Amino acid sequence: MGNKVTVLGGGAMGTACAILLSENPEQEVALWTRNPEHAAVMAQSRQNERLLPGVKIPASVAITADVEAAIDGADILVAAVPTAFLREALTDWAPLLTADRPMVSVIKGIENETFLRPSEIISEILGQRGVVALGGPSHAEEISRRLPASVVAASGDLSLAKRVQAMFTTDRFRVYTNVDIIGVEMAAALKNIVAIAAGICDGLGFGDNAKAGLITRGLVEMTRFGTAMGAEASTFSGLAGLGDLVTTCVSPYGRNREVGERLGKGETLEQIQADMKSVAEGVWTTRSVYELSDQRDVDMPIANEVYQVLFEGKSPTAATESLMLRPPKRE
Amino acid sequence: MGNKVTVLGGGAMGTACAILLSENPEQEVALWTRNPEHAAVMAQSRQNERLLPGVKIPASVAITADVEAAIDGADILVAAVPTAFLREALTDWAPLLTADRPMVSVIKGIENETFLRPSEIISEILGQRGVVALGGPSHAEEISRRLPASVVAASGDLSLAKRVQAMFTTDRFRVYTNVDIIGVEMAAALKNIVAIAAGICDGLGFGDNAKAGLITRGLVEMTRFGTAMGAEASTFSGLAGLGDLVTTCVSPYGRNREVGERLGKGETLEQIQADMKSVAEGVWTTRSVYELSDQRDVDMPIANEVYQVLFEGKSPTAATESLMLRPPKRE
Repeated sequence: MGNKVTVLGGGAMGTACAILLSENPEQEVALWTRNPEHAAVMAQSRQNERLLPGVKIPASVAITADVEAAIDGADILVAAVPTAFLREALTDWAPLLTADRPMVSVIKGIENETFLRPSEIISEILGQRGVVALGGPSHAEEISRRLPASVVAASGDLSLAKRVQAMFTTDRFRVYTNVDIIGVEMAAALKNIVAIAAGICDGLGFGDNAKAGLITRGLVEMTRFGTAMGAEASTFSGLAGLGDLVTTCVSPYGRNREVGERLGKGETLEQIQADMKSVAEGVWTTRSVYELSDQRDVDMPIANEVYQVLFEGKSPTAATESLMLRPPKRE
Repeated sequence: MGNKVTVLGGGAMGTACAILLSENPEQEVALWTRNPEHAAVMAQSRQNERLLPGVKIPASVAITADVEAAIDGADILVAAVPTAFLREALTDWAPLLTADRPMVSVIKGIENETFLRPSEIISEILGQRGVVALGGPSHAEEISRRLPASVVAASGDLSLAKRVQAMFTTDRFRVYTNVDIIGVEMAAALKNIVAIAAGICDGLGFGDNAKAGLITRGLVEMTRFGTAMGAEASTFSGLAGLGDLVTTCVSPYGRNREVGERLGKGETLEQIQADMKSVAEGVWTTRSVYELSDQRDVDMPIANEVYQVLFEGKSPTAATESLMLRPPKRE
């Protein structure tokens, strides 16, 4: 087993992963970030000042904007760029990446136009290779500050998932393995729809009962949709499903929850888009899931109501009533 | 189907249930509370001033401390007394309760000495009759203020569960049915152990990642223990399991979470007991579950660590480390 790991992407999650991986003294860690100035400042100050202020990046992490140098000699790669830029970044890296080097994706989301999962985009651009998706409740800031977290490393290749488990594990970061990469990646994208709904509850002034009920029923429909796409139901009860869903719906910082809260307070999607730098990803995931669930006849009452509030001008109060007054049923 | 419902217990949950049930104009609702003075003040002020201040109890709810009058003509009863007083209360009511009248239990907890569930105590004292357990995320104060909530009505007798579903449903209170009463009652008790652990995380200053990981893995072991006691696994993914667990671990008001937070900040159980009127129920549930899981060989790592912190003086930090450093495994 090789011992050089290269993290591709100098955002909050990429930086946090580099810090985490460097805790293992047997690992050599490189961190690549696109912007040379950003790389130089980080290498000098040993901080990602904008995204993880006050957190020290150990001297052992080699920070560079030279992708060739970063990748050179790497035994395994960690992809940590936003879904929207993944295809382009992979195309740039492709000539440098020989086929035997596996890739870990810490990317959460789905490609808007294609509804492809990150691991599928990786295979499409780089050709078949071992891919592991890391999922679960994992705010980068908390990880970088050594607050405890538990995540799941998923791959069809269990021995590769175990290798990644060993790479990332510390006394504050516990990694479980799972073979259902479809489920782990689908859950990471689908949770954002429920997070918008959770924000709507907050905006309407609802309480803990409503939020907990929404999380529970939201997970039921995430599972229903995920299994229709080939995932295992059990993955949705795990860290990438339930675990990540809870933080996303409860934490005040998420962008998807924030969009929902502003909708709940009466703003329209246009008003929200006007002053958000980029629209929260769950907005587009809602649209895709609305269309796909209709095509495949999967019952998604919460996603449908979020869609109608986002794109058809339905009032959040009317959407709530539609959900509460559905015909009585078994759990 | 009869239309008089009597709620036995004038605490926050009993009062909230009486208010909720009175929304259905076809139902006649009586609310019994043990203390005659309390009954007189509530009947006069139309408020439960201590527990639900500012919430109006409709004039149609007949409030009394006379149990015979309350029960007279009731077609169905709702038991809303704390687990610790249930056996005694049932013994008092028994001569008045003919066998054909079913009982709904909104009681969450388990009897300390016997580890019996509320429905089992009801059957033991009153003899066999239809019993329905209502579970799920249901803070009484939010229900009484008409904030939305979703719950589950569970009974081995599905037609009775459906009757209770119809009784309680409003445009703000959605009721699902379930046939697994063991699971619904077990989940309500077991969640308090995880809530203590969640409080410990808060007391130690941990973040959202840790809390969400704990909820996920806590639900795994609640399910493992519950199924060993005869419950269905799926119930734990539902409103009484996951749903109630989320509110209990996240809401700052719960007593079990509070005990945990104080432990996390360095207090001992003795110090906490010294100024809490009564000890949070999860403390005793932890002890019972620790013993039973040992006897039945059910792996309960979180419950075991909570037990050691509560009763064996283990430090919360050491308990966290024990959990994080367990051998790596599959999810």
